[in-house]
Amino acid sequence: MRLLHRVFLSLLLCFLSAASLFAQTKIAYSFRVVPLGVLGGIDESNLSAYMVAPAGSNNYICMDAGTLHAGIEKAVANKAFTVSAEQVLKRYIKGYFITHAHLDHISGLIINSPDDSTKTIYGLKSTLETVKTHYFTWESWANFADDGNAPLLKKYHYKALEPGNEVAIDNTTMQVQVFPLSHSNLTSTAFLVRSNDSYILYLGDTGADEIEKSHNMQSLWETIAPLVKAKKLKAIMIEVSFPNEQPDKTLFGHLTPRLLMDEMSVLAKLAGSIKGLNVVITHLKPPVASITKIKAQLKANNQLGLNLIYPQQGKVLKF
Amino acid sequence: MRLLHRVFLSLLLCFLSAASLFAQTKIAYSFRVVPLGVLGGIDESNLSAYMVAPAGSNNYICMDAGTLHAGIEKAVANKAFTVSAEQVLKRYIKGYFITHAHLDHISGLIINSPDDSTKTIYGLKSTLETVKTHYFTWESWANFADDGNAPLLKKYHYKALEPGNEVAIDNTTMQVQVFPLSHSNLTSTAFLVRSNDSYILYLGDTGADEIEKSHNMQSLWETIAPLVKAKKLKAIMIEVSFPNEQPDKTLFGHLTPRLLMDEMSVLAKLAGSIKGLNVVITHLKPPVASITKIKAQLKANNQLGLNLIYPQQGKVLKF
Repeated sequence: MRLLHRVFLSLLLCFLSAASLFAQTKIAYSFRVVPLGVLGGIDESNLSAYMVAPAGSNNYICMDAGTLHAGIEKAVANKAFTVSAEQVLKRYIKGYFITHAHLDHISGLIINSPDDSTKTIYGLKSTLETVKTHYFTWESWANFADDGNAPLLKKYHYKALEPGNEVAIDNTTMQVQVFPLSHSNLTSTAFLVRSNDSYILYLGDTGADEIEKSHNMQSLWETIAPLVKAKKLKAIMIEVSFPNEQPDKTLFGHLTPRLLMDEMSVLAKLAGSIKGLNVVITHLKPPVASITKIKAQLKANNQLGLNLIYPQQGKVLKF
Repeated sequence: MRLLHRVFLSLLLCFLSAASLFAQTKIAYSFRVVPLGVLGGIDESNLSAYMVAPAGSNNYICMDAGTLHAGIEKAVANKAFTVSAEQVLKRYIKGYFITHAHLDHISGLIINSPDDSTKTIYGLKSTLETVKTHYFTWESWANFADDGNAPLLKKYHYKALEPGNEVAIDNTTMQVQVFPLSHSNLTSTAFLVRSNDSYILYLGDTGADEIEKSHNMQSLWETIAPLVKAKKLKAIMIEVSFPNEQPDKTLFGHLTPRLLMDEMSVLAKLAGSIKGLNVVITHLKPPVASITKIKAQLKANNQLGLNLIYPQQGKVLKF
């Protein structure tokens, strides 16, 4: 009996540690990101768009929507999804988060709208106003939205977000908080997405505070520093459009490797060490020679020890 | 001597007929067309855009500009051009002819504008007005044009075309004449391009006169019938967006195989036989099943004996 008892206990322990290992494997990441487009220009088949869902869920949101169809096709070909491209568009994407109305961040949404399902477009009021008055207008495109020029086809609902409040994202278990960014003449947006106790931060096009004469980045870093400290922020997705050689006056509200690292130093001062923090570099602008230079400059200037990640179209990232 | 004479004569004849054959081969076509994008929807990497140049020239114009970069890349990969994609965009394309302002006909132009060279955008006044007030506005995009919201970056010059006049196309040896088309709530455009004594006709999105309650197609066919009769019209590039099953009320200003053939019958009545006329079918709307159906229906309804051509992205056509 005693031996049997001991065997039973050993088996129980074995089972429990296996279960815990399994659970650990299962919760080893918080977010699944599928990049649909990663470049900052001219290639219509690969412009800013990133699907984000909590681990284990197919209820995604799409951060910006420069390229949808061509990116989804590539993701399906890469087996990032096991359903058809049509199903990914219609069923997996539950809403769009548009950082600003520049066409390389929204043309995919407009082009795909006839084949899309009913969902919500989130953004700052100013961004949605431009979508309403410049795109879904019956001049540039049919009005698939629920506001603006009649007749309203009502496929999309506009939901304006205000800085300072966390808002639940429809048809997902995620929440979002918005922050204004300075992008030359436009106000761009950062979206802080939460799933349970984990966060991911996606920034649209942005200049550095130093160049833009702004405090938007400073305020953002102050808000997220505690999350970084507590290891709750799983990744920052942020743009670097030009190499360091780009003159300040032709930055057009974008970052270079030097400016990114300056901003990251501000965050590091607020959060303590940010060594190993996942930083996904978005919006690299062709040509290839320029992209190669940006990558080399980021590597050479990475004294903070950031985990620099270069997303590829249709290849899954886990954070 | 007599034998030698005869041999010499034979050789001369042989040479002359070879030379004539060579000359015929050389002038066997009038236009070179490089499709940069051929579909009527959702695939951002393959939307309406067709480069057209006189045979033997690299001074192209681009009819619509839904997809530029991705199409040029494909054409270069297919050896349609021997220069780089950058050179094709900057040096080979001398001007854009925009049929209407729907985004799938112009997003490539806007996305590629930062990397483009100085050139002219041609279109009806109403089309250019929408480009000016909806795209190059500093809200949706920087204003790369020479009119509209300040500051003007002046890379592009707007040139409004009026029906009824033939106009020389800058930096090419071609001329153009415009015709209004009915495309639901918008006025779309047909461009009749002339090189010497040869013509090619490109139509933007259009509905049939029967559905649109219009005479635009009738007027166009009346104008070009003499050119067809005289074998001067080398090709018609025209849209077929939906299969015959599409209900009239959801055609949104587009053609089906039946409606195209009805329109072609009007032309045939005016021009006599149009057997063998090159008709390039543009703007087929995905999904693939629908495109397959359109092709089958066109084939089954081709009593007129048209030479139906389905353009492929990056593959040269000669007319």
